[in-house]
Amino acid sequence: MAKHDPDLDLIFQALSDPTRRAMLARMGEGPLPVSELARPTGLALPTILRHLSVMEGAKLIETAKSGRIRMCRARPETLVATMDWMAEQRAIWEARTDRLEAFLKTLQDGDDDADQSGT
Amino acid sequence: MAKHDPDLDLIFQALSDPTRRAMLARMGEGPLPVSELARPTGLALPTILRHLSVMEGAKLIETAKSGRIRMCRARPETLVATMDWMAEQRAIWEARTDRLEAFLKTLQDGDDDADQSGT
Repeated sequence: MAKHDPDLDLIFQALSDPTRRAMLARMGEGPLPVSELARPTGLALPTILRHLSVMEGAKLIETAKSGRIRMCRARPETLVATMDWMAEQRAIWEARTDRLEAFLKTLQDGDDDADQSGT
Repeated sequence: MAKHDPDLDLIFQALSDPTRRAMLARMGEGPLPVSELARPTGLALPTILRHLSVMEGAKLIETAKSGRIRMCRARPETLVATMDWMAEQRAIWEARTDRLEAFLKTLQDGDDDADQSGT
C-alpha cells in the first residue's frame, strides 16, 4: 500500500493562517456545516469558502453536500502525516546530539589517558 | 517561567517552502555556514539570505557571525512547540472519537435491552 504522502507545501501554507487553524480546531470536535463554521468568525461567506478550499486542497478537511447544507470534516490522518515529518527532523537533531555527546566523551577519555601518562 | 510561545503563523509560513525545509533538514545535522547551505540549491545568495531571514523570523533557526562567516543553526525547540500544537489538535480529535464510541455503545446496549424485552 502506498504511504499517505502529504503535500507539505499546501499543508503548512493552509496552517499558516490563524482563522484556518481556529476553524480546523472546531472541526476536530466533529463535522460542522459551513454556516456554523462561519458564525464566530464574522467573516463573509466567500472568504470562509476560500479558507475551506485552501484546507480541502491540503487534504486537512473534506466537505460534502447533505441536501442544501455543506458539511465540513477534519481529516486527522493528514495532520498525523505532517507530525511524522516533524518527528523525523527531531530524530535527526537528536541523533546529532547523541553523536556530539559520544564525541565529547571520546575527547574527555583521551584527556584522562593523557593525564595518567603524565603522572 | 513563561512557556515558549511560538508564532505559528510565521513557523508554518516558513515551513511551507520546500527549499527552506531542505535547508532546515541539513542544519539538523549541525550548524552550517551560509555558503555551504547555498551550494546544493543552485540559488543566488540574496535568495538564500531571504529564505534564512524567513526562518530566523520564525525562530526555526538562528544565525551568528564568526569572523567573516555567518553560521546557521537549527532551533529544535521551535519545532517541538509546533508539534505540541499538532498533538493538541490530535488529542481533541481522539477524545471526540472516544466519546462517539461510548455513545454508540450506549445505543447498542439500548438495542440489546429492547431485544430482551421483545422476547
